Amino acid sequence: MSELSDIIDALKPVSTATITTVLLKQGLRRVWMRGPRPIRPGQPRTIGRAFTLRFIPAREDLATPASWASPRSTRAAIEEAPPGSIIVADARGVTEAGIFGDILCGRIKQRGIAGLVTDGAVRDIAGVLESGLSVWCAGVAAPPSVACLTFVNWQEPIGCGGVAVYPDDLVVVDDDGAVLIPAALVEEVVRVAPEQERVEAWIMDEVAKGAKLPGLYPPNEENLERYKDWASRR
Amino acid sequence: MSELSDIIDALKPVSTATITTVLLKQGLRRVWMRGPRPIRPGQPRTIGRAFTLRFIPAREDLATPASWASPRSTRAAIEEAPPGSIIVADARGVTEAGIFGDILCGRIKQRGIAGLVTDGAVRDIAGVLESGLSVWCAGVAAPPSVACLTFVNWQEPIGCGGVAVYPDDLVVVDDDGAVLIPAALVEEVVRVAPEQERVEAWIMDEVAKGAKLPGLYPPNEENLERYKDWASRR
Amino acid sequence: MSELSDIIDALKPVSTATITTVLLKQGLRRVWMRGPRPIRPGQPRTIGRAFTLRFIPAREDLATPASWASPRSTRAAIEEAPPGSIIVADARGVTEAGIFGDILCGRIKQRGIAGLVTDGAVRDIAGVLESGLSVWCAGVAAPPSVACLTFVNWQEPIGCGGVAVYPDDLVVVDDDGAVLIPAALVEEVVRVAPEQERVEAWIMDEVAKGAKLPGLYPPNEENLERYKDWASRR
Amino acid sequence: MSELSDIIDALKPVSTATITTVLLKQGLRRVWMRGPRPIRPGQPRTIGRAFTLRFIPAREDLATPASWASPRSTRAAIEEAPPGSIIVADARGVTEAGIFGDILCGRIKQRGIAGLVTDGAVRDIAGVLESGLSVWCAGVAAPPSVACLTFVNWQEPIGCGGVAVYPDDLVVVDDDGAVLIPAALVEEVVRVAPEQERVEAWIMDEVAKGAKLPGLYPPNEENLERYKDWASRR
Amino acid sequence: MSELSDIIDALKPVSTATITTVLLKQGLRRVWMRGPRPIRPGQPRTIGRAFTLRFIPAREDLATPASWASPRSTRAAIEEAPPGSIIVADARGVTEAGIFGDILCGRIKQRGIAGLVTDGAVRDIAGVLESGLSVWCAGVAAPPSVACLTFVNWQEPIGCGGVAVYPDDLVVVDDDGAVLIPAALVEEVVRVAPEQERVEAWIMDEVAKGAKLPGLYPPNEENLERYKDWASRR
Amino acid sequence: MSELSDIIDALKPVSTATITTVLLKQGLRRVWMRGPRPIRPGQPRTIGRAFTLRFIPAREDLATPASWASPRSTRAAIEEAPPGSIIVADARGVTEAGIFGDILCGRIKQRGIAGLVTDGAVRDIAGVLESGLSVWCAGVAAPPSVACLTFVNWQEPIGCGGVAVYPDDLVVVDDDGAVLIPAALVEEVVRVAPEQERVEAWIMDEVAKGAKLPGLYPPNEENLERYKDWASRR
Repeated sequence: MSELSDIIDALKPVSTATITTVLLKQGLRRVWMRGPRPIRPGQPRTIGRAFTLRFIPAREDLATPASWASPRSTRAAIEEAPPGSIIVADARGVTEAGIFGDILCGRIKQRGIAGLVTDGAVRDIAGVLESGLSVWCAGVAAPPSVACLTFVNWQEPIGCGGVAVYPDDLVVVDDDGAVLIPAALVEEVVRVAPEQERVEAWIMDEVAKGAKLPGLYPPNEENLERYKDWASRR
Repeated sequence: MSELSDIIDALKPVSTATITTVLLKQGLRRVWMRGPRPIRPGQPRTIGRAFTLRFIPAREDLATPASWASPRSTRAAIEEAPPGSIIVADARGVTEAGIFGDILCGRIKQRGIAGLVTDGAVRDIAGVLESGLSVWCAGVAAPPSVACLTFVNWQEPIGCGGVAVYPDDLVVVDDDGAVLIPAALVEEVVRVAPEQERVEAWIMDEVAKGAKLPGLYPPNEENLERYKDWASRR
Repeated sequence: MSELSDIIDALKPVSTATITTVLLKQGLRRVWMRGPRPIRPGQPRTIGRAFTLRFIPAREDLATPASWASPRSTRAAIEEAPPGSIIVADARGVTEAGIFGDILCGRIKQRGIAGLVTDGAVRDIAGVLESGLSVWCAGVAAPPSVACLTFVNWQEPIGCGGVAVYPDDLVVVDDDGAVLIPAALVEEVVRVAPEQERVEAWIMDEVAKGAKLPGLYPPNEENLERYKDWASRR
Repeated sequence: MSELSDIIDALKPVSTATITTVLLKQGLRRVWMRGPRPIRPGQPRTIGRAFTLRFIPAREDLATPASWASPRSTRAAIEEAPPGSIIVADARGVTEAGIFGDILCGRIKQRGIAGLVTDGAVRDIAGVLESGLSVWCAGVAAPPSVACLTFVNWQEPIGCGGVAVYPDDLVVVDDDGAVLIPAALVEEVVRVAPEQERVEAWIMDEVAKGAKLPGLYPPNEENLERYKDWASRR
Repeated sequence: MSELSDIIDALKPVSTATITTVLLKQGLRRVWMRGPRPIRPGQPRTIGRAFTLRFIPAREDLATPASWASPRSTRAAIEEAPPGSIIVADARGVTEAGIFGDILCGRIKQRGIAGLVTDGAVRDIAGVLESGLSVWCAGVAAPPSVACLTFVNWQEPIGCGGVAVYPDDLVVVDDDGAVLIPAALVEEVVRVAPEQERVEAWIMDEVAKGAKLPGLYPPNEENLERYKDWASRR
Repeated sequence: MSELSDIIDALKPVSTATITTVLLKQGLRRVWMRGPRPIRPGQPRTIGRAFTLRFIPAREDLATPASWASPRSTRAAIEEAPPGSIIVADARGVTEAGIFGDILCGRIKQRGIAGLVTDGAVRDIAGVLESGLSVWCAGVAAPPSVACLTFVNWQEPIGCGGVAVYPDDLVVVDDDGAVLIPAALVEEVVRVAPEQERVEAWIMDEVAKGAKLPGLYPPNEENLERYKDWASRR
C-alpha cells in the first residue's frame, strides 16, 4: 500500500466526479454520500482517512447536556481523531439539531483534523465559519445535538448519507460532496483516476475548440489515438 | 428489580397506548417506534428484553450473498439471542430489501424468541406468515438484505424507528406498534400502568352508560371518588 | 338548499370516485384528502356536515396530560359536535401520536356522530375498532396526542390532507377515502352525480358483455343514444 | 429462447424473493419495484410480458375528461395489450389520483390480460376488487387520473417504482410485490431459480427439524452434500 | 415583565444556538422551526413579538386572485401588524407557491415590521431582496400564494416549521434560523442566556489557546473556578 | 403566431412570478417546476423553446459508461438541440447522480443553446460553473448519470418537476425558477403579462411612497383610474 501522503498527492487533481466514475467501473455505485454539502463555496478538495462517529436517536433520559461530560462523549472522540483524518459522523440524516458548533469545530481545527463530514447539521453557523474548519454537512440548526441525538461511539462501521463507512476508508470531498473509497480499492483508484482526469481535460479542450461530442466522449479509436499522441507530447 | 416473568404478568393487560402515557408523564416522548407495524392483525401483545441487531447501508464490495456465511452474520446473531427476548433490528428505515425471510424467521421462532421488531422490511411474506413468528415491520420487499444493507453487529445500542434502544431495555408490542421502556424505568411503569389501565376501563364503562367526557376523562375529584369506590368493591 | 336528509339520500348510491369527477368538471381538483384511509374494510359510505377540529404542533409547556381538562379541549369539542356530523380533524399530517383512542371514539359514537376523518392517527386501535365508530385516518400510533400535538379550537377553517375544509362543508367517505363538497356546490353535485353513476353502471354492464372501451367510455353519440334508450326503459 | 408458456411453468413455483436473489448474483440490484403492493391478500403469483403505459404530470389544458376520448388514450392502450401480458403503468409515483377504476379494470380482465402493476393508485377500489383483476398498486384514491396525470403513450421504455421497464421484459408479481426480469436474463433465471428454490425448501425442512443456521444457510460443503443426497432421492 | 426594549438589548448578543440550549434545560425541545432559512447571508439577528398569519390549503373556488381584495386578506393583516413585530406565517410547509412577493415585502418593510418568518416560500426573490426586508423562509417559488394556499386569519395560534407559535411569543432569528421563546419563559431566558454566552466565549478562548475539550466544555469544577475568576476581572 | 424573437422581446421584462399569475387566471396552476433552482445567483432571465430529454431509472445491465457511445445518447441529443432552445431534462427528480458535467455543459454552451433546466442534478459543479452555461437544477452530485439513470430519448412529452413539458412549449427561467408556457397560450401571455408587470411597477412605486395595501393591490376602481392616468402619461 502506498503512503497516505503519496495517495493524497496523486488524488489532489482528481475530482470526486471522476472518482465515482472509476469506482462505478469497479461495480461500486453506493459511494457518494447524500446530504453532505460544503458549508461555503471554494473549500479546497480534501482527502483523508475516515474517523467515524456514531449517533443514535435521542431519548430524554439519555440525551441531556449532562451527557456531554461522559467519557464516551463527542469531546473525547475529537481528542482521539488523528491529525489529517476526516471526521465522518453518522447523524442518521437528522437535520433538526446541530451535532457540533463553534467550540467543537474550533477544537477539531486546532487538532489538525482535515475536515468534518456528516449527514446531519452543524449549529452556530457563524461561529463554525469563523473557526476555519472545512465542513460538509446536510444543514444548519440551532438546537444542540442532545435535542435529537445521543452520541454512542467512535471508530465503528457507520452509515453516512446512505454509504457504508468503515474506519480508515479513504474520504475525498470537494464541491460535489463526499465520496468514499473503500480501503481495498484505494490503489486501483490511484492507478486509474489521474489518467481518466487527463483524458477528460483533453476532451474539454477539444470541446472548447468546437468538437462534437459523439465519438469524442467517450473517445472512439480515432480520438483515442489523437489523445495518446497529445498526451505523449506533454 | 422484579423478575422478568413478574414484569410480563403485570404488563400483559396494559396497552402500549397506556405505557406511552405513563412514560410521557415521566418526561419521555421518544419511546414509540415509527415504522414497525404488525404483519397480521391479532398478534398477541408481546413483552421481552431487546436483543439488538445493527445494519448499515450496503456497499457492493461488502454486501454479497457470500457475506451470509461470515461469523458476524445475522445467522450467528439469531443463535445468540436468548429465548423470550425480542429481536429489534435497526435497518435505518430501509424498506426496499427484506432483512429476513421464511428461513430466518422459521429459525427465530424455533429458538423460542418472542418476536421480531424492525424499522425495515421482511421478505417472502407468505413464508414468514407461515413460520408463525410474531413480526412488527415497516414493509415487505422481495430483495435480500444484501441488496441494500450490511449486517454489522448485535447487542450494540441502536436506533429503531427514531427510538434509542439499548440491549436489555424492555420492549412491548401490540396492534399500536412497538414501545420501548428504558431498563431503569421498568419498575415505575409496572407500579403505575396497571392502575392507569383500570381507571380507563372504568371511564370506558361510564362512557358506555352515556356519561359526558369533560370531568370524566381525566376524572375530576368527584369522579375520582366514584372510581375509587368502584375499584374498592371489585 | 335541499334538506340534508334529501342530500344524503341522493348521494348514498354515488361513490367518492364519481363525486371527484363531477367536481373536476366544475374546476375543483383539491377535494380528495391525502391521508385518511378506512380503519377497516367495509365501513359504509358516510355523508355528513363537517365539524372541524384544529391541532397545532405540541410544545412541552402546553401539551401535557393536564391540558386534557381545559375547557377548550378535544373533550369539550366532542360534546359540541351535532349528531349526524362528521368530525374532521386537522392533525397536520402528524402520525406519530394518536389524536383519539377508545374512550373518545366511544363517546363520539355514543353521541350519534356519523364518523371521524383525520390526516393524523388514532391510538389503541383495538379499542377504537371495538367502539364501532367509522374512522378514516392516516395511521395508528400508541402515544397520546399531547406527545406531538396541541388542540386549539373547533369549527374554524382547517386543512386536512391538503384540502381546505370549512365548517358545514359536506364530507363523503367510502373505501376510496374522504372527499369534500364545498357547501356552495352541494346542489350541483346532487343534480349531476346520480346520473353520472347511472351512466357508469350501464357502461360497466356493456363491458361485462364484452364491449370495447373506445367510444363507450366516455360514450360517443351512438352509445349515448343506446344508454338513453336503456335508461328510459328502467 | 424458450416458449413463454414453458417459462411460466418453470417460474410458477419460484418466489419473487428467490428471483431477486438470482438477479443480484448477476449484478442486478434494481429489479424490485417500490410502490406496487397487492390490492388483496392471496392474489396468485402472476407472470407475463410487460405491456407498458406512460403518464406524465397533468396540465389543466391537457388533462381533462374530454381527453379520455382521444385515440392515444388509456382506453385504446387497453385494447392493444395482448392477452397474457401484464400492464405496467408508469404513474411517476403519484398516488393522489387513480389511474384506473372499475370500468377499465373490468375491461382489462375481460381481455384476458394477466394483471395490472403500477407505482400509482387505482380508484373505486370496491369496483376494482369486484372486477376480479389482479392488481399491484401503490394506493387507492378517489380522483380520476386526469386530476393529476396525462396519459402519453404505450409500449415505450418506462420507469415504475424506480425500475426501468422495457416492453416485453418479463414481470413476476406475488405477495412481495413486482419484480422485473430483463428479457435477456430470462433464460438464466429459468436455469437457476428453480434449483435455488429447492435448496431453500430443503433448508426450511432442516430448520423445522431444529437445525442451526450457520453452515446451513447458505449451506457449507457438508450440508451441500446432504442436500444433494436428499435431492437425488426425490 | 421587562420592557421589550430591555429584553431585546439583553438578547442581542445571544445566539439562537444558545437560546435553544437554555430552553432545553427547561425541558423545551420543540422551539426551533424546521424550514425558515435566511434568504441572504448576514441578515442581522432579529428579535420581536410574533404576529401570526394562518394559511390553509387552496381550493379552486376560494383561492383566486379576487380573494386578495377581501377584508380578511394578507393585505389587511400586514396593516395590522405592529412595528417591531415579526410576522410568522404558517404556510403548512408548502413551498410551491410564494406567500409574499416584492410588493407585500416592500409594504412590510415600510411599516417598520422587523422581519418575516415562514415555513413556506416567497416569490419574486429579486424584488424581495431589493425591498431590504429581513426574511427567513423555506424556499422561493414563482406562483402566487393562491395557487396553493388560502389565507384565513391573523393572530391565532399557529404551527410554523413544527413549532407552536402563539401571538406575542418572542421570536429570535439569526443565521441558524428561527427560535421561539414562549412568552412565559422570556424572563428566565433573559436571566440565564447572556451568562451562558459568556461562558462559551471564555471556552472558545481557551480552545484558541489549545485547551482540550474534556473538562472544559462543559467546564468541570476547576475550569468553572478559572472562568469565574476570568469573568470577575472583566 | 408571433416570431420567437418578438415573443422574447416582449417577455424579457416579465418575471416568472408575473407569468404564473397570468396563467393562473387562465386556469393553469401546474406550470412552475419543483426542483430547478439557479446554480448561481444573477443568471439572466432566459426564454426559449423546450428541447426535451427523457431519462428512466438505471438498470445495471443498461446504464453503463459504455452506453454513452450509443446513437440514442445524451451526446447525440445535445447535437440535435437547436441554438436558442432550452434543454429540459426529465430526471424523475433523482438528485443522487449528475446528468451532465463540465464536458457536456461546455458543449451545450458552445452550441448556442440558451440554458439547461432539470429536476435532477449536475456533476462537477466547478467545471459546470466555468462553462458559463445558465443552469437550473435540483442539486449537485458527483456520480455520473448512469449510476442512477438511463437516457431514453429526446423531444418526447416529459414531466419535469411536476410539470408536463411538450417539445416546443415555451420555457422562462429566472431567479424564481422555471415556468412553462404551453405553446397554445404564448400569445395570450404576451398580450397580458407586460401590462400586468407595469401595473405592479406602479403599485411598487406607490408602496415606496407609503401607500397602504388594501385597495391598492389589487387596485380598486379609484386606484385603477390613478394607474391609467399614470400609464397614459408615460
